[in-house]
Amino acid sequence: MSMQEGARRAKEASVHLAAMKTEVKNQALANIEKSLIRRMAEIEKANAEDLKRSEEEKLAAPLLKRLRFDEHKIKDVAAGLESLIGLEDPVGKTLASTLLDKDLELFKVSCPIGVIGVIFESRPDALVQISALCLKSGNSVILKGGSEAKETNKILYQIIRDAAAEAGIVDGWIQLAETRDDVGVMLKLDEQVDLIIPRGSNEFVRYIMENSNIPVLGHADGICHCYVDEKVDLDMAVKVVADSKTQYVAVCNATETLLVHEKIAEAFLPKLKEALDKKNVELVGDAKAAEILSIPLATEDDWKTEYLDYKLSIKTVGNLVEAIDHINKYGSGHTDAILTTDKEKVEIFMDLVDSGNVFWNCSTRFSDGFRYGFGAEVGISTNKIHARGPVGLDGLLIYKYKMIGHGNIVDDYESGKRTFIHRKEDKDFSL
Amino acid sequence: MSMQEGARRAKEASVHLAAMKTEVKNQALANIEKSLIRRMAEIEKANAEDLKRSEEEKLAAPLLKRLRFDEHKIKDVAAGLESLIGLEDPVGKTLASTLLDKDLELFKVSCPIGVIGVIFESRPDALVQISALCLKSGNSVILKGGSEAKETNKILYQIIRDAAAEAGIVDGWIQLAETRDDVGVMLKLDEQVDLIIPRGSNEFVRYIMENSNIPVLGHADGICHCYVDEKVDLDMAVKVVADSKTQYVAVCNATETLLVHEKIAEAFLPKLKEALDKKNVELVGDAKAAEILSIPLATEDDWKTEYLDYKLSIKTVGNLVEAIDHINKYGSGHTDAILTTDKEKVEIFMDLVDSGNVFWNCSTRFSDGFRYGFGAEVGISTNKIHARGPVGLDGLLIYKYKMIGHGNIVDDYESGKRTFIHRKEDKDFSL
Repeated sequence: MSMQEGARRAKEASVHLAAMKTEVKNQALANIEKSLIRRMAEIEKANAEDLKRSEEEKLAAPLLKRLRFDEHKIKDVAAGLESLIGLEDPVGKTLASTLLDKDLELFKVSCPIGVIGVIFESRPDALVQISALCLKSGNSVILKGGSEAKETNKILYQIIRDAAAEAGIVDGWIQLAETRDDVGVMLKLDEQVDLIIPRGSNEFVRYIMENSNIPVLGHADGICHCYVDEKVDLDMAVKVVADSKTQYVAVCNATETLLVHEKIAEAFLPKLKEALDKKNVELVGDAKAAEILSIPLATEDDWKTEYLDYKLSIKTVGNLVEAIDHINKYGSGHTDAILTTDKEKVEIFMDLVDSGNVFWNCSTRFSDGFRYGFGAEVGISTNKIHARGPVGLDGLLIYKYKMIGHGNIVDDYESGKRTFIHRKEDKDFSL
Repeated sequence: MSMQEGARRAKEASVHLAAMKTEVKNQALANIEKSLIRRMAEIEKANAEDLKRSEEEKLAAPLLKRLRFDEHKIKDVAAGLESLIGLEDPVGKTLASTLLDKDLELFKVSCPIGVIGVIFESRPDALVQISALCLKSGNSVILKGGSEAKETNKILYQIIRDAAAEAGIVDGWIQLAETRDDVGVMLKLDEQVDLIIPRGSNEFVRYIMENSNIPVLGHADGICHCYVDEKVDLDMAVKVVADSKTQYVAVCNATETLLVHEKIAEAFLPKLKEALDKKNVELVGDAKAAEILSIPLATEDDWKTEYLDYKLSIKTVGNLVEAIDHINKYGSGHTDAILTTDKEKVEIFMDLVDSGNVFWNCSTRFSDGFRYGFGAEVGISTNKIHARGPVGLDGLLIYKYKMIGHGNIVDDYESGKRTFIHRKEDKDFSL
């Protein structure tokens, strides 16, 4: 099937999926979970094929690792489905209600967005997770995976499609794009696709963002900062910066640049180095930091680089404003922390740092949908509209206004015959 | 100043504007209001120049009408500012709070989006309104008006800029682009501009949407429908359809196509025609409607056309599903109404019609921010993300997550030393 035809079907299905009962959607998720376990051998066989071919094609080791979809990962994904079933249905919630007039009521009610395009590299677990999130939130999904995972993706797609159909989910809600050209086509389908979620490398995400008019939910870079103020508990700061940098380096919420007030630099930096040396963290710094720690000088590029590795750039600053300016200039609007005992500075930092997540005295690594208690994570967004920061199921929803009248016409209000009441109510939508 | 430089300054200012106190913003709005009245003669003089030049350049009469910015319109705009001052500050509201652990708290707090690009044709009042909305919501704004209004826009820009500066609003928050090329440049400035709001004709809005990766808030077409079901109070239906079509024809929420159940068509259509004939509404219909009413046949194009005029296309349908399919195929996702006494059908209609506004037994003309009670209207959006339907000040806001810790590190939670509580709280953010 062509991408255009698939998208058309997905859009058609989305209308009906929006009205699917919670029980049907949860039954479908339960079916998918069972089916993944029951057909594990098939999945592993398909995955083995992908692994074999990719090894022959000399795919890089980290990508091979991501591509592997074994019993352990399948069970993980199944457990994720189990917890998704337990979450409240986000569709059909009354977000606001207003009595416009004694016989005219307005309700703002949550509903699915429509058709979500998902483009991901290697990891087959992403396919299952995002399809399940779309299903729970009543959205159709068009999947485009990496060609290295094509056999695994195909069997997973079939399993999900069939298991959902068995529960009574409308046909066509899930589509699998198979050719490389399909990505380019999908990026142009703004009539059918309402939102694109890319999962992959920075370059990959940036490419998607730059080549589509369709809104993209996600982030390219994660250049996170810790700023250590002059007034600070040094031991606490060492602990938090070390965790922010080293707890897991290959992720977007790991800190890449440390900013430190020059008055505390000499006391703080050697202590920090001691902690980071244990994890073999490579350090580069501005002139002052380089002098204090005898480390190489950082280049302009260092401030713009997401290392995703055991490496940290360090800059000394004369005051809070300098730190904030650096973050707003070089950061990616993801997550930035201030470590201080001075509440006034915290307030300024949180107001002026233009990032989705601004933290006081805790690790940047907390920036995550599960840690935030969302139950499910769609992704982390550095967008300035719709959804920002870690995004839960809510990010896959929008709303519609439902109005209930009794023959009301605008002319009566324009002519002054009737007047609006506009009274906010706390009432769920019902007919 | 180049558009790039202006956008850079607007972005820089936006960071500080985000932290502006409510009193300062309201004082600025009050200053603008006063200044508009005080400098009315200057405004009228500039506007007269624009009108004279545009008349010489043979600008179409409706555009000349929109361009005129006289005492009456200036006072209207000033009154709008007055009511905007009265609205609650939408910035800094705690939208959610969660206790992650006994010493770790997460707050979701509303904040401005950043930089709003506004591109509008002729109407100078749009410049004042949208600048004021941006100011109240803490956003920087880059304005690009039509060249026909350039003198009026320039003086209005100066008045707003100076009046806001007097109140202590940070410099650079408002920028006026002056050349035609600036539009093209702005559409590419996705590093600086976070959201574009176009105000103008359908073609104009569509052009903007198709030529930028920056999110656009607005709507191109407003192809609204009324569906008259077989079970219906005929007099009520006539009244509502007539209001939907004729109360004001040149607006996006006016009905363009009537769908009517074939079982009621013969009883309903002649009654409706009687009412519409009083306003000289031109009618076209499908074969059945054309036969009943002796009116010309509608073409395929009629179903896709936003007349914005005293013209209505009429289609008979065999059942509710046919009506819904027609709306989802030809509509623009704006506003659609069902007229019926059958609640079950209303439920299906509201669930399956994929529009921002779905109404029962009332006029499509109610689809409007002021009628909804928003106090201010940013525009009407047919987007599927961020903001849909009539958009109030909320549409100019996003949120950031603020976390307050006490030296918390992720490693403690990953290692099992500590566990998350994740307790939802009803608490406003404070340090």
